[in-house]
Amino acid sequence: MIRVGVIGYGYWGPNLVRNFAADPQADMALVCDPQEDRCLTAQEAHEGLKSCRDAVQLIHDPNIDAVAIATPVSTHFPLAKAALEAGKHVLVEKPITQTAAEAQQLIEIAERNRCVLMVDHTYVYTAAVRKIKQLIDDGTLGDVLYYDSVRVNLGIFQHDVDVIWDLAVHDLAILDYLLDQKPVAVSACGKKHADNNTESLAFCTFFFDSDTIAHINVNWLAPVKIRRALIGGNRKMIIFDDLEPSEKIRVYDKGVTYTEDPGQIYRRRVDYRIGDMHVPFLDRYEALQQVVHHFLDCIIHDKQPQTDGHMGLRIVHLLEAAS
Amino acid sequence: MIRVGVIGYGYWGPNLVRNFAADPQADMALVCDPQEDRCLTAQEAHEGLKSCRDAVQLIHDPNIDAVAIATPVSTHFPLAKAALEAGKHVLVEKPITQTAAEAQQLIEIAERNRCVLMVDHTYVYTAAVRKIKQLIDDGTLGDVLYYDSVRVNLGIFQHDVDVIWDLAVHDLAILDYLLDQKPVAVSACGKKHADNNTESLAFCTFFFDSDTIAHINVNWLAPVKIRRALIGGNRKMIIFDDLEPSEKIRVYDKGVTYTEDPGQIYRRRVDYRIGDMHVPFLDRYEALQQVVHHFLDCIIHDKQPQTDGHMGLRIVHLLEAAS
Amino acid sequence: MIRVGVIGYGYWGPNLVRNFAADPQADMALVCDPQEDRCLTAQEAHEGLKSCRDAVQLIHDPNIDAVAIATPVSTHFPLAKAALEAGKHVLVEKPITQTAAEAQQLIEIAERNRCVLMVDHTYVYTAAVRKIKQLIDDGTLGDVLYYDSVRVNLGIFQHDVDVIWDLAVHDLAILDYLLDQKPVAVSACGKKHADNNTESLAFCTFFFDSDTIAHINVNWLAPVKIRRALIGGNRKMIIFDDLEPSEKIRVYDKGVTYTEDPGQIYRRRVDYRIGDMHVPFLDRYEALQQVVHHFLDCIIHDKQPQTDGHMGLRIVHLLEAAS
Amino acid sequence: MIRVGVIGYGYWGPNLVRNFAADPQADMALVCDPQEDRCLTAQEAHEGLKSCRDAVQLIHDPNIDAVAIATPVSTHFPLAKAALEAGKHVLVEKPITQTAAEAQQLIEIAERNRCVLMVDHTYVYTAAVRKIKQLIDDGTLGDVLYYDSVRVNLGIFQHDVDVIWDLAVHDLAILDYLLDQKPVAVSACGKKHADNNTESLAFCTFFFDSDTIAHINVNWLAPVKIRRALIGGNRKMIIFDDLEPSEKIRVYDKGVTYTEDPGQIYRRRVDYRIGDMHVPFLDRYEALQQVVHHFLDCIIHDKQPQTDGHMGLRIVHLLEAAS
Repeated sequence: MIRVGVIGYGYWGPNLVRNFAADPQADMALVCDPQEDRCLTAQEAHEGLKSCRDAVQLIHDPNIDAVAIATPVSTHFPLAKAALEAGKHVLVEKPITQTAAEAQQLIEIAERNRCVLMVDHTYVYTAAVRKIKQLIDDGTLGDVLYYDSVRVNLGIFQHDVDVIWDLAVHDLAILDYLLDQKPVAVSACGKKHADNNTESLAFCTFFFDSDTIAHINVNWLAPVKIRRALIGGNRKMIIFDDLEPSEKIRVYDKGVTYTEDPGQIYRRRVDYRIGDMHVPFLDRYEALQQVVHHFLDCIIHDKQPQTDGHMGLRIVHLLEAAS
Repeated sequence: MIRVGVIGYGYWGPNLVRNFAADPQADMALVCDPQEDRCLTAQEAHEGLKSCRDAVQLIHDPNIDAVAIATPVSTHFPLAKAALEAGKHVLVEKPITQTAAEAQQLIEIAERNRCVLMVDHTYVYTAAVRKIKQLIDDGTLGDVLYYDSVRVNLGIFQHDVDVIWDLAVHDLAILDYLLDQKPVAVSACGKKHADNNTESLAFCTFFFDSDTIAHINVNWLAPVKIRRALIGGNRKMIIFDDLEPSEKIRVYDKGVTYTEDPGQIYRRRVDYRIGDMHVPFLDRYEALQQVVHHFLDCIIHDKQPQTDGHMGLRIVHLLEAAS
Repeated sequence: MIRVGVIGYGYWGPNLVRNFAADPQADMALVCDPQEDRCLTAQEAHEGLKSCRDAVQLIHDPNIDAVAIATPVSTHFPLAKAALEAGKHVLVEKPITQTAAEAQQLIEIAERNRCVLMVDHTYVYTAAVRKIKQLIDDGTLGDVLYYDSVRVNLGIFQHDVDVIWDLAVHDLAILDYLLDQKPVAVSACGKKHADNNTESLAFCTFFFDSDTIAHINVNWLAPVKIRRALIGGNRKMIIFDDLEPSEKIRVYDKGVTYTEDPGQIYRRRVDYRIGDMHVPFLDRYEALQQVVHHFLDCIIHDKQPQTDGHMGLRIVHLLEAAS
Repeated sequence: MIRVGVIGYGYWGPNLVRNFAADPQADMALVCDPQEDRCLTAQEAHEGLKSCRDAVQLIHDPNIDAVAIATPVSTHFPLAKAALEAGKHVLVEKPITQTAAEAQQLIEIAERNRCVLMVDHTYVYTAAVRKIKQLIDDGTLGDVLYYDSVRVNLGIFQHDVDVIWDLAVHDLAILDYLLDQKPVAVSACGKKHADNNTESLAFCTFFFDSDTIAHINVNWLAPVKIRRALIGGNRKMIIFDDLEPSEKIRVYDKGVTYTEDPGQIYRRRVDYRIGDMHVPFLDRYEALQQVVHHFLDCIIHDKQPQTDGHMGLRIVHLLEAAS
């Protein structure tokens, strides 16, 4: 039974507490938030849950084995560092830290203290992304030619980061999980609007050694919410629309073959193949439940998480490069 | 009565011939195509229409006042140059030429010979783009913050150009028409795929002196056809979906205001305004009919076309910069 | 402060308890469910809430002023009857009872005992239906020609009723609220499928004295979920799609005018008018909060609820007629 | 080489002429329309095509083997009768006649004179309906539980018929083709609106001996165009949306199984199965080309058309029953 403490009971914290409370491998023991009313809310929702207002107290509580951190990004590093140094296993919200140097430090402390360090890149644990991974790995898609994502809406969801750190971080985690290779170059354009001093929209392109190219379009000033990625393989192509209630993944049996047509100057022979379209059934579960379960599993069986500190570091590297 | 000759009866030529034939200001007199079967098809469809196989013959025919050119891009310059030098008014398909230098030459010849030189940027004459222009000009949108277009499908539509010259050219024409200002910088990334030696997808960003930024995502390898632009103003925002049969323009009464919130470090006061959505009724007409009518009108009343040689040149400048 | 007891803590009960607990006019005092684990769940979620397993005990508790009943339909009548006879105000889930005779009895007891009797036809209190009512009442739609609803999905939501009592009941409540007149005739066809002894799909048509006709298509065996009504007026027409997250109501400026064309035998002159389309902004609130607030308000100020026993009776009359 | 004459060059006639002209088995010889300008239009579009203004002349022309009739419904019977009596093969637009008695007469004359009599129920020849037929015949859908069609739009397409004869006729032809059995009972409700003396909307239900039920909702006064049928089988279910450009048929692996649950009074055990969704690729062809080809084939090889006079008669029977 892993005894868990959660720091931060704002937007995401309640979801962590609820999932740890429901997992039979965990004892959801202590929640910490500087605002007393939030602590009370947490205790009303979960009988027997203790609370405190000081993160240092939680981190050094000898009755806590693992700490989950759901606080503003700027506090991730000091809190995670303190927890790891106190020998606690750490699950931290994405992005892991504000700088690659900080992430590198956390990795080293975790390894030195033999603690699990995991980043909550929730998307990686969704049924949709798992299915796409499977379709790539079993060769259904063929070579991945491009990943082209539009992730826009009206409104800012995080207040201490710009639109790239808030929204593009999801696509970078998905790409890191889906593709074996990592980007070798980045090109990004953003725009600050009105009296705002952070980027509110940005267009990022990531280049790989292979034929793959990735493009991420993020925008806090869009009239509608769009969460859609086109993933083009040379055998099949996918539309991943995360706002679709049940048909999130559409697999198109479409492709293209080029051959030279010597008879015509202006015309290459291009064969477009158009076949059936398929919407695979996806298991319905809350991705965060898998995150929590995987974190506990890695602690108990001394395993490396799929979204470990190294993965978190790679994402921060790319976010720094794009910013 | 303007006597019109059309060069090229492939994909677009038949539409030009049909519209000139229907316009009471024009005498659709002569069509020219090197393939004899196409000439026969044209004559079957339009009683009394004459045809020839040599463009030079058409250009120098003293019974022709105006020439419309619907041939591969690489032939636009020599054909338009010959026609203008022969004193004919010219309507040429987009893009006007393959290089800015060629376009500049055509402008000069046209001015010297007092001929109308017009480029068929058809999109500028659609009811949808006209309506968007009106909503910008009357202040409904407020300041235009961004233009973000996705124009993708499976398949190559033009064979002597890459995806930017084939698809992004439409957005550049729309932008030139909608905005008073012109881009001051360009960033573009493309990708050649398979054994193809031209770009099959590209992401282009155009920067303006003002707060405006434009982004154009074009792709010949997409699983579905998308023709959709988001146009964000600080007062209202538009979604322009050209594949919608009747609801092409959606005007969202959405906006955002930033104010500093001195009480909180991590939080700017951001007010999002969400109101009604409105789909204006659009007149139903064929845009090419307006193109043809405007061309004839400019000849008869000695006017400068909205999509004249200078506009064609600006587009080619941007295409060169993006490529 | 109205002291409230809720009977039934299954599917809908928790929503009632939550909304009563949040309303400053109510003291959410007692919850009753025969299953002990449900009582415990209720108490964990709401600190200080008492529970009992016997409805009779709750009904006769002198510390309770009002009773909300969220139990299977077959128990509505005995529970509501007992509560009204004990002098409690009653909010009962829809449909009010299984027969019109029972509903009539409840109305009489409530009037005799000067108790508020209200039916929870939640749809009537949604922002969407309120907006449609306003568009009809202010003449925007003109005369209502038809109401045509499709309400289908895969799966049974209630187990002691057929598809008409489960799904069509919503449309009947909406119609009762929207239109001043009541149906004068009913035609309904249903179908029992497989080894099921209740109707799993049904098509009901309701006729009014005026030009209005209403059609309700309900189906538990549909491959997708649809919740969409067309409402045709002679001036404007509405599509009400309850599954749209934010654009639930679309108002089309479309209409039709007939005039006799004396010149042609087979052709009436029909003028179709097609104009703009408009999506009004809807306030975002939980309809049940309005239900609870209105119920408390009627008790405190001795008012008749909008969805009172008489309205509940009219709906049951129509359900009986259609079945 | 079958020599074909077409009567009527209004809305549908040009499509017939074009398809007969393109079929190598036919000699598109003569077109007939009382309006001279239409005859001229036909001749301009098709070189060498002769025209006349009198149907009697066409019918008795010894150089004509087969007659296609695309005129108002009220004239179908006299024209088809005259043509069959003159020994011509006949392709007549749907519905075959205005009464079942007339259709019966045509069948008898055709059989007596050994002429092919075919009705142009075009829908039966579309790739989408062919694919649905295949999915029913090969057992993919299982038993067909229901066919539920919505076929609505703003505007009248035919002026000498009501909405049932104009729109429901399509669904009746599709049903006749898809199902081996024929309806045994009909229930229909319609409504005349404004000063219009024909039904402008109607709801028709057709009952079969088996478990199947069919429902057809037709409306000329709808704010949007909808052409969508749900087809529920006990193994799979289909959505057929004819307005989808490429994804007309969606096959849902959804179903339901009922078993008695002895332990619970109010609850039958219902198992809903939800699996993948599949969009089969459909061949792209013009259905009318298949109609014309099949008609010519039946003449040449002395075969019975799939949509012969008997089928046309069955449809008229149902239209009469529903009206």
